[in-house]
Amino acid sequence: MDNFVFHSPTKIIFGKDTELQAGGETALHAKKVLLHYGGGSVKKSGLYDRVKKALSDAGVEIVELGGAQPNPRLKLVKEGIALCREKGIEFILAVGGGSVIDSAKAIAVGVPYSGEVWDFYDGKAVPQNALPVGVILTIPAAGSESSPSSVITNDDGAFKRGLTVELIRPVFAIMNPVLTFTLPAYQTACGAADIMAHIMERYFTNTTHVEFTDRLCEAGLKTIISNVHDVLKNPEDYGARAEVMWTGSVAHNDLFGTGREGDWASHMIEHEISGIYDVAHGAGLAVVFPAWMKYVYRHNVQRFVQFANRVWNVDIDHENPERTALEGINRLERFFASIGLPVTLPQLGVKDDRFDEMAKKCTRNDSFTVGGFVKLKSSDVHEILKLAK
Amino acid sequence: MDNFVFHSPTKIIFGKDTELQAGGETALHAKKVLLHYGGGSVKKSGLYDRVKKALSDAGVEIVELGGAQPNPRLKLVKEGIALCREKGIEFILAVGGGSVIDSAKAIAVGVPYSGEVWDFYDGKAVPQNALPVGVILTIPAAGSESSPSSVITNDDGAFKRGLTVELIRPVFAIMNPVLTFTLPAYQTACGAADIMAHIMERYFTNTTHVEFTDRLCEAGLKTIISNVHDVLKNPEDYGARAEVMWTGSVAHNDLFGTGREGDWASHMIEHEISGIYDVAHGAGLAVVFPAWMKYVYRHNVQRFVQFANRVWNVDIDHENPERTALEGINRLERFFASIGLPVTLPQLGVKDDRFDEMAKKCTRNDSFTVGGFVKLKSSDVHEILKLAK
Repeated sequence: MDNFVFHSPTKIIFGKDTELQAGGETALHAKKVLLHYGGGSVKKSGLYDRVKKALSDAGVEIVELGGAQPNPRLKLVKEGIALCREKGIEFILAVGGGSVIDSAKAIAVGVPYSGEVWDFYDGKAVPQNALPVGVILTIPAAGSESSPSSVITNDDGAFKRGLTVELIRPVFAIMNPVLTFTLPAYQTACGAADIMAHIMERYFTNTTHVEFTDRLCEAGLKTIISNVHDVLKNPEDYGARAEVMWTGSVAHNDLFGTGREGDWASHMIEHEISGIYDVAHGAGLAVVFPAWMKYVYRHNVQRFVQFANRVWNVDIDHENPERTALEGINRLERFFASIGLPVTLPQLGVKDDRFDEMAKKCTRNDSFTVGGFVKLKSSDVHEILKLAK
Repeated sequence: MDNFVFHSPTKIIFGKDTELQAGGETALHAKKVLLHYGGGSVKKSGLYDRVKKALSDAGVEIVELGGAQPNPRLKLVKEGIALCREKGIEFILAVGGGSVIDSAKAIAVGVPYSGEVWDFYDGKAVPQNALPVGVILTIPAAGSESSPSSVITNDDGAFKRGLTVELIRPVFAIMNPVLTFTLPAYQTACGAADIMAHIMERYFTNTTHVEFTDRLCEAGLKTIISNVHDVLKNPEDYGARAEVMWTGSVAHNDLFGTGREGDWASHMIEHEISGIYDVAHGAGLAVVFPAWMKYVYRHNVQRFVQFANRVWNVDIDHENPERTALEGINRLERFFASIGLPVTLPQLGVKDDRFDEMAKKCTRNDSFTVGGFVKLKSSDVHEILKLAK
């Protein structure tokens, strides 16, 4: 186990009707807030009205910014920064899924910064201050509600880049599983793939003596696997929705990654795909992850045997552990297909004519490698994309 | 799953040499601190000197209070409160195990309170303020380093009582597994039993649809079970010590209890035993828990079957699930015995002449029942004590 610091101070307020507490919680931090959201669904569901009322009842003044979209764009972030400065905003309340929250976090670090906010995502600067962010979550997927991460797409150059800094962990996250009842099946499945990917990125590690976090990861994966079918069958299954929502949050607050190096190559590769093609992040991960596994499993067959056995209940073939390892990967792929996700790039509408471009962008022309478990050059990334064809 | 609030903001600083960060971390909160510890072991090990130097180097002024003992006493807490007031202390740094930390928490709530600190433990008042507490942990067991709980024994009346309030969660917890290398085998085993008990108190619940937290609990239990023998065989096995230490902390920060009612009867019963007999809390739990299980398992045989199967790898006897349930309890009991713990009250030196007194004190003469999973009257507690004979 490696040395680590773990500090996850986000206050989780979980359960039925918890969005009604948004006013009181927000008022603990500020009197003037930016209410940030995406498209029409929060209005259609009535959530928008309930949250506005809760804020007003608590004496909180509201400035609004809607329009955050999947793979959130830098353009809107810049608008948000300007708006916050103009109106003297003290706090951002994000109502939505990971894209809205990531957008809110970008605005939060941009407001007190004199340079271009993209500097933080491009690695040119590290944020020193941020407005506090609160969250009302409507999509269990990105885990952004309690993570220190934000991913933004620069629409000028089709670059999708992440920022990770403790400063942007939300101060509170309100999670009502009922708010996820109306999530379409495909988005539900994409969310599940995203949650599983966050866990698997941490699971595949070279760090030894990580039994506790291994088992926590396995707990999270098994819970998602056994609940997603229930949710797809009955979108109003409160218990199953709650399992997915709470697992999705813990999966990415980094408890599961404590004391161990993660991999994260699949996320890097997927960011190149969805940066260009604007596919759902979870769908991209469902395609990339099994391909990545097929490319790297020989690096540590026993870890893939453990994955197959403990997560997928595959009996271990002690004469041929490699067969067990491959069966685990197959089960993952079949699971993704069974919940309606694509498992090849053509199913995503991604052709092979830009593989080289994506592979090179992913490693910035081989100026670094990607992945902690196996260090990948651009030629490796290219091979993985070919395996996903 | 029930509604819940989960807020565990303790900053965990984990790994080798982390105690050297005590000065910098403390200085973030205060310039004048009470350094609270127990007996001679922190001095003998050199930890005391290293911590004092770290504090001095960071410009932190130190007032000392040693002498905290297992089942920490109200008398020392009162001394600590007087000392803090006299010296204008702003922060308490506890160096030791759960007893030292619990004692520090009691001092922390007592300092700003005009009444008797025992009021908080006796349920007569709720603390509104507290000095912040930081921790350097030397014994993985009580989980007090990141929990909102403190247990104190009133030496006047042999009453052992707990306080749980968010205000007393430590602001930071420094955990270096190397500091646990010198822990004697018996204390190591008692710690393991305490950690397992914290998990099992949450595991046995009537709340439905709690798969995620069930599996987290199972992850914790399996990790302790598989690492304790390694630690006892080789006390300087860093990896195994680290697994036990980190599991012990997460086991009691209440993540594992989110969204579910716990039981806690075994803790209540054990408190009556160790309140009178001054036995190690973990040893008392090793005796009480299997007895409690034998008394209550019929309330939900399937939950005990799950416990036997998932935690102890017992094959399920589908024709006779009760047999599987009982085998799980047997395995737990045998495990405790295998790590050198008592599993009967006579082994603890506890005779049956005060069973009635303990049973009545536990329920305050049947003014309430104890336990969430099964509600126990004093006559039930008496029966459980008899089963532990």
